[in-house]
Amino acid sequence: MKSFPFLWAVLLLVTFSGCCQPDRDEEVVFQTSTIDALLEGVYDGEITCGELRRHGDMGIGTFDALDGEMLLLDGSVYQIRADGFAYAVEDTTKTPFAAVTFFKTDREAELAEGLEYSALEEHLDSLLPTTNIFHAIRIEGTFSYVKTRSVPRQEKPYPPLVEVVKHQPTFEFSSVAGTMVGFRCPAYVKGINVPGYHLHFITADRKAGGHVLGCRIRKATVGIDHTSGFYMALPEARAFYETDLSRENQSALDQVEKEK
Amino acid sequence: MKSFPFLWAVLLLVTFSGCCQPDRDEEVVFQTSTIDALLEGVYDGEITCGELRRHGDMGIGTFDALDGEMLLLDGSVYQIRADGFAYAVEDTTKTPFAAVTFFKTDREAELAEGLEYSALEEHLDSLLPTTNIFHAIRIEGTFSYVKTRSVPRQEKPYPPLVEVVKHQPTFEFSSVAGTMVGFRCPAYVKGINVPGYHLHFITADRKAGGHVLGCRIRKATVGIDHTSGFYMALPEARAFYETDLSRENQSALDQVEKEK
Repeated sequence: MKSFPFLWAVLLLVTFSGCCQPDRDEEVVFQTSTIDALLEGVYDGEITCGELRRHGDMGIGTFDALDGEMLLLDGSVYQIRADGFAYAVEDTTKTPFAAVTFFKTDREAELAEGLEYSALEEHLDSLLPTTNIFHAIRIEGTFSYVKTRSVPRQEKPYPPLVEVVKHQPTFEFSSVAGTMVGFRCPAYVKGINVPGYHLHFITADRKAGGHVLGCRIRKATVGIDHTSGFYMALPEARAFYETDLSRENQSALDQVEKEK
Repeated sequence: MKSFPFLWAVLLLVTFSGCCQPDRDEEVVFQTSTIDALLEGVYDGEITCGELRRHGDMGIGTFDALDGEMLLLDGSVYQIRADGFAYAVEDTTKTPFAAVTFFKTDREAELAEGLEYSALEEHLDSLLPTTNIFHAIRIEGTFSYVKTRSVPRQEKPYPPLVEVVKHQPTFEFSSVAGTMVGFRCPAYVKGINVPGYHLHFITADRKAGGHVLGCRIRKATVGIDHTSGFYMALPEARAFYETDLSRENQSALDQVEKEK
């Protein structure tokens, strides 16, 4: 009789851990807020990086007050600040906009030497089963060239993002080893996230990086995670509630995301 | 000693049911596929109504092969077919497009007698804290007038929705008791769901209804569930993968959703 409580405990643990586990959905891109809210200057952090890490081990975003570019890589959050350097981030630090997922490689491919950014985007599209779902992207290797930017921390009243990036610091890396992480989102998420590719870069020594504006591949491998689930957690904050999110923002988005 | 196994069992059940419950997120609109895929004729059922009911107890949608309008109300799925009548639905029946949530009233209000559909939309907007999040809507009472439509089951190759609704059957109800359920979605979900209001109607005797094209309130109450979470499950099907979802479809959407 004495072993019964232990047996019951094990039996129930097994039963209920089985019931809990499927709720960690790995085939989902988790996002907080919308890209248009960020474009309009909704920079107040909404959820913590600790919470974000419950929804993924890789991803990209920014920080409270637009304090730099975020990279989530192998479960660690990095902050590429306006000086171009990467800093470790506390779990209590908040983010106003980020997208993350648990990365599992569905497709892997070598990338041709000399491939530049726009050709890289076209080549990656040729590797996808469809552009109508989400794809998490991880490119690892050496690059003969990478150009990035970051954004400086803002003070209230926050200016729109298109104003901020007029004075964005940019950084150029030559013969650099590192990792690019990010997403390819479907065209129809316009207003919600960035249609097409959106990648952030960090060097192999995890010391510098930023939002990718351009690159040339030397020797690199891409891993692609096809993802059919999308979860968006909207802020419950006055700044988000009161912003006009009905406007067409494509030209602002192009100015903000792309090389000028 | 004899009571120990039972005590352990109860203790563990309590512990683990607590761990599982938060994963049933009630503050989320769950959606399968996108409205633009439906507009383009992606009518093959993707998930079952049984699965849909795991994500909500109220909502709207359609069925495999576009076989009528769906209403999920108090956990039961109804199918308003092209004859205007409501039919019970098996859990194994599939849907190509639906949005559901677990409805909990955040705001309740009486609606003025004589209120017609477009004025009703404006009035409901005045009750919301913001139009930048999702709101589930439930209007219950009597209506001096309701006009609905349904859509007939289609055969392959499926025509686009805008072609189907050219021949849609419409239904008019006078002095009718019933319930309207649906959502108010933010402007930025264009391409994904219907921006603004989208309501389906079923009579109090659960015998008839359809997609709401117009109405006049007699005596009714609206319940509103403010919802900040949005989960989209995209089809893993060739028809979805191969459809061009990059087009602008606003005029098609207006033709499909609204009174002509």
